[in-house]
Amino acid sequence: MQFSSALLENAVNEFSRLPGIGKKTALRLVLHLLKQDPKEVERFSEVIAKMRQEIKFCQRCHNVSDGDICSVCANSMRRQELICVVESIRDVIAIESTQQFSGTYHVLGGVISPLDGIGPDQLTIAALLQRIEKEKTEELIFALSPTIQGDTTIYYIQKKLTGKQVRITTIARGIAFGGELEYADELTLGRSLQNRMPVEKYMNH
Amino acid sequence: MQFSSALLENAVNEFSRLPGIGKKTALRLVLHLLKQDPKEVERFSEVIAKMRQEIKFCQRCHNVSDGDICSVCANSMRRQELICVVESIRDVIAIESTQQFSGTYHVLGGVISPLDGIGPDQLTIAALLQRIEKEKTEELIFALSPTIQGDTTIYYIQKKLTGKQVRITTIARGIAFGGELEYADELTLGRSLQNRMPVEKYMNH
Repeated sequence: MQFSSALLENAVNEFSRLPGIGKKTALRLVLHLLKQDPKEVERFSEVIAKMRQEIKFCQRCHNVSDGDICSVCANSMRRQELICVVESIRDVIAIESTQQFSGTYHVLGGVISPLDGIGPDQLTIAALLQRIEKEKTEELIFALSPTIQGDTTIYYIQKKLTGKQVRITTIARGIAFGGELEYADELTLGRSLQNRMPVEKYMNH
Repeated sequence: MQFSSALLENAVNEFSRLPGIGKKTALRLVLHLLKQDPKEVERFSEVIAKMRQEIKFCQRCHNVSDGDICSVCANSMRRQELICVVESIRDVIAIESTQQFSGTYHVLGGVISPLDGIGPDQLTIAALLQRIEKEKTEELIFALSPTIQGDTTIYYIQKKLTGKQVRITTIARGIAFGGELEYADELTLGRSLQNRMPVEKYMNH
């Protein structure tokens, strides 16, 4: 692309460095900003810069936070003895959006994946183990990807907790509500038959 | 979506105001920026703000410009007596990217569209007419959308130029190179038959 303005070109280049944003989309976004009030664009720019400069990670659960401790950990209404172990901040947002979980989180920062050079030391597993020890955690719920890497991570942490008084569970896998049986993959369908549940329990939800 | 950080939430909201960017995409972009070096994000933010604050519109052709006169108008190698009339800055970028045009531009800022409340006064038509008068323009090439609005705009400007010594043309319409005949719309195919060109002329390109 040939731009007649270096200012425009630089802005397009910056946007096109974002994931999933090509040159044409970047140009569309920049031309949109160009039509906005300069104050609106200044606010856009400031909010982004401020987010990156000031955002912190919760010292307890490694979730994003505006302070040293995140709003979930700081909330005394949440069941602090219940920890949901997730891979990323995105998973915390997904679970919080269900409004069905009253415990706390622990963000691992990924899953064990030797091929990608990610071992237990690259994740926040040591901090999780210390936390369980110190806080007398009652239950650990794993909400990780149903992949070999996710399963390896569960297995590794479970091994480390041998002999400890902590209940270890994972979220239910099965056919999604609204999911059509014929489109479900065989593994999910097979497992959902094995792990069938009493109708009374299903109806209570 | 439930965020545990107001900083994160504000950043996601700002991104999701951009056209074509929903909440989920906005979150993906913000989490990407969160992983980048703070200096990189600061540069992103600064380049966007600077673009909006400092960009100007060329006083002659209304294209975006870093100075009072854009780089196309300021280039003495370009044929200043040849003006390509376009709707938007995006069209200038598209034509410049072909590297086939050696004239200058005039950005109308849209086309006449009474239903959308856009009349000749909302566009830069008066400036174009003054410019043609003053600069003794030899040729005006219209590169507008092939719509009723585009055609109305051509008709309006052409009427205003009655009696003036200026050649008025429009870019060729026809089947795209690499376009399959069977997928072409009837109007384009019909017109491309009417406006057929000598093979010698075609082969010379």
